[in-house]
Amino acid sequence: MTTTASYSVTGMTCGHCVAAITEELTALPGVENVHVQLVPGAVSVVTVTSGAPLTDDVVREAVDEAGYEVTGRP
Amino acid sequence: MTTTASYSVTGMTCGHCVAAITEELTALPGVENVHVQLVPGAVSVVTVTSGAPLTDDVVREAVDEAGYEVTGRP
Repeated sequence: MTTTASYSVTGMTCGHCVAAITEELTALPGVENVHVQLVPGAVSVVTVTSGAPLTDDVVREAVDEAGYEVTGRP
Repeated sequence: MTTTASYSVTGMTCGHCVAAITEELTALPGVENVHVQLVPGAVSVVTVTSGAPLTDDVVREAVDEAGYEVTGRP
């Protein structure tokens, strides 16, 4: 069974940002899909599908590692 | 003797964009240095230092290849 969760993320501006955050999140264990709805200069929505639920801390850390910030849930 | 020329470039938003355009321009023959003054969402200034003058067409094409547009000289 898969779990899908969405996160509000700030700081993303372009396709390179989408690629960077997708790469970082895809590297997390169990992650099967990452979808980014880019809103340049505002709050983008990142949706992660994984084989088991991810803790918020793990997602927050991966997003931070890519250079962006989780500000909550959309 | 080296030549330095600056170009106004639109479409750049973040550090990834700076890296992409720097990589593309550095690959041109004779280019010794690329400096980008990033102005996210507006007109950035890209300065290229090369061993011999580059034609505008060559620079325009490299910038276009990176996904941005030369709009003139600053």
